[in-house]
Amino acid sequence: MQSAEPKNQKSCLVATLSRYTSAVRNMEHTIMLPSLLRDVPPKEPEDTFAAEGNNKDLYEYYLMLKSVRNVVESGLMPPDERKALSAPLETLEDSDPETLFHFHLTGLFSVLNNLTTSSHVLTRRYKEVIGLSN
Amino acid sequence: MQSAEPKNQKSCLVATLSRYTSAVRNMEHTIMLPSLLRDVPPKEPEDTFAAEGNNKDLYEYYLMLKSVRNVVESGLMPPDERKALSAPLETLEDSDPETLFHFHLTGLFSVLNNLTTSSHVLTRRYKEVIGLSN
Repeated sequence: MQSAEPKNQKSCLVATLSRYTSAVRNMEHTIMLPSLLRDVPPKEPEDTFAAEGNNKDLYEYYLMLKSVRNVVESGLMPPDERKALSAPLETLEDSDPETLFHFHLTGLFSVLNNLTTSSHVLTRRYKEVIGLSN
Repeated sequence: MQSAEPKNQKSCLVATLSRYTSAVRNMEHTIMLPSLLRDVPPKEPEDTFAAEGNNKDLYEYYLMLKSVRNVVESGLMPPDERKALSAPLETLEDSDPETLFHFHLTGLFSVLNNLTTSSHVLTRRYKEVIGLSN
């Protein structure tokens, strides 16, 4: 019963990936001079990336959003660059596979939605920087 | 450069999902009487699910593999049933989004590949139970 129309329903994950690549594409088309974002700090609270508490400028966020988009579009892990988490994740390995599956799928949706929002925010911030926002 | 041929390359994640649903479909077609798996414990070391250290029988694994397949095919989170991890994951929230993205994507590939193997193993175990393996 639950598995009816698998192809249509599968589009939900694809749609999330597609929304992200679309947001980054729009960001790229808008931001003609990415270097103008150098040394521009994120604003709080409206910038979604401001919560991370690091010192990246908006140019670095721009590069990060494009980098993630490339991975989304390739559908592959970066071969030699799997960024390790320093978190104590031994407990994850003890989880049953179904829990682990839900955890990573939920996490992937969540991070992709956040990155999509970040792409929109970065696009808007660029327009402010070049004086187009008012 | 890296984002060339996005649609072809995107099939990699789709292919992983597809391999899993295919393995479960084959399992379902083979296992005509799932109840024969009740009270049959996993074997070590060849059964991938044996490492989890719990007391599930193969029938419960059969149901779990089908349950995950339904979520894969729907592409959605289970609405009221997001299984919480008891792991201390606060550190994850402090990770930068790119690291988090790689973490969840790598994790999703890994758990799907493990579940695919489990589906094959469970299919083989059923054949043993009904005396078809020799």
